[in-house]
Amino acid sequence: MTASFEHIGMLGFDVFGTVVDWRTGVARACEPFLRKHGVEADPLAFADAWRAQYQSAMEEVRSQRRPWVKLDILNLENLQAVLLQHGVQAADIPFIALEELNRCWERLDPWPDAVDGLLRLKERFAIAPFSNGHIAGMLRLARYGRLPWDVILGAEIAHAYKPQPAVYLASCEAAGLAPPEVGMVAAHNSDLLAARALGLRTVFLRRPHEHGPQQSTDLEPDHAWDVVADSMLDVADALGC
Amino acid sequence: MTASFEHIGMLGFDVFGTVVDWRTGVARACEPFLRKHGVEADPLAFADAWRAQYQSAMEEVRSQRRPWVKLDILNLENLQAVLLQHGVQAADIPFIALEELNRCWERLDPWPDAVDGLLRLKERFAIAPFSNGHIAGMLRLARYGRLPWDVILGAEIAHAYKPQPAVYLASCEAAGLAPPEVGMVAAHNSDLLAARALGLRTVFLRRPHEHGPQQSTDLEPDHAWDVVADSMLDVADALGC
Repeated sequence: MTASFEHIGMLGFDVFGTVVDWRTGVARACEPFLRKHGVEADPLAFADAWRAQYQSAMEEVRSQRRPWVKLDILNLENLQAVLLQHGVQAADIPFIALEELNRCWERLDPWPDAVDGLLRLKERFAIAPFSNGHIAGMLRLARYGRLPWDVILGAEIAHAYKPQPAVYLASCEAAGLAPPEVGMVAAHNSDLLAARALGLRTVFLRRPHEHGPQQSTDLEPDHAWDVVADSMLDVADALGC
Repeated sequence: MTASFEHIGMLGFDVFGTVVDWRTGVARACEPFLRKHGVEADPLAFADAWRAQYQSAMEEVRSQRRPWVKLDILNLENLQAVLLQHGVQAADIPFIALEELNRCWERLDPWPDAVDGLLRLKERFAIAPFSNGHIAGMLRLARYGRLPWDVILGAEIAHAYKPQPAVYLASCEAAGLAPPEVGMVAAHNSDLLAARALGLRTVFLRRPHEHGPQQSTDLEPDHAWDVVADSMLDVADALGC
């Protein structure tokens, strides 16, 4: 095993992008919705536009301009904003249809290597989402994709959003571990930068198609992370699982 | 499936007594500790005495005479009290030894039917501890006994102790379910009484030896619970899993 993981008791995982392929899954759900409600948009482009609202919506919470709310609330608000960008008033669409579409974030396929890799890692480490997703969303996503989490930690435990330190710290604390006893696995350099600053070990898992074939961000590690891997199976190999 | 469970999305489980055999596991850990530190006590009787402190310690929190603290803190305080009952000052024992013994609550064997039953139930329902145990303790207990929880809910989510309504309500809420969409599985009538009052479905799982061969409490259902079972496999049968 990589020496720096000898005393690690738990791995925390970013989920959207790192464990599951949100873009394909969201686009798949958007396609019939857009057609039915007469929204002229390519489903993949619509998924990208929806996701593009993600960071600025969370920033409202991080900046304390609004109190913490669960991610499904932000996703639903963001959907309404994206519909408006496409010239559609969300208020003209039955609310139940908006809510149903919003649930697509809970029905996303894991990357093909994810479940097998997690099962191997789980033999040695406790594994938990350290996601900005809320507990109910992570629970449904896990049951949809058979993600074998031991426990669901992350944003809702802390009432904060990554990369705020509280998310990592509260997740470690809830598991009864100090940050140096926890490793963070993510496809996003910014996530690992925040985790390392708090003392967590870091695993960069390349997901070069998270944002589609033209992806330009997070193709390479920005820093000398403890492990760099190309799949969850690679992560398991690197950690001796 | 029992008709009243048709719309159930999650089962919450009492853990100590219902899923795991705390008495045997605690006594097993106490035996060498008592011998080493010269405490004259039968390990099973010592385990019973330790557990006897449990409700009154939680009652301090329920009554708001003290703020909520995690169960391992209460268990450690209770250990010190029980040692004193046996004429031993806990302060004379290395603190690390007390902490190590206190961890026995995280290394308890599941009842023989528990894991197989949970695996069957998990095919149909999300499954989660609704325990007074804290998250880290439930996590370690699950990894020790391979309890296949989907998510860990219960007292720490609510900062309350069963049978306070907040524990059941916060656990349902975190899973995104209304109380009538959740079933409570417990070997204790009082737990089910509190759950039913809030609208949860109820499963009484007889554990007639939780307190040893002389057990006199919770041998039978006190009320007409939705399901009465003699093992976790029975629960799975009753719920069509």
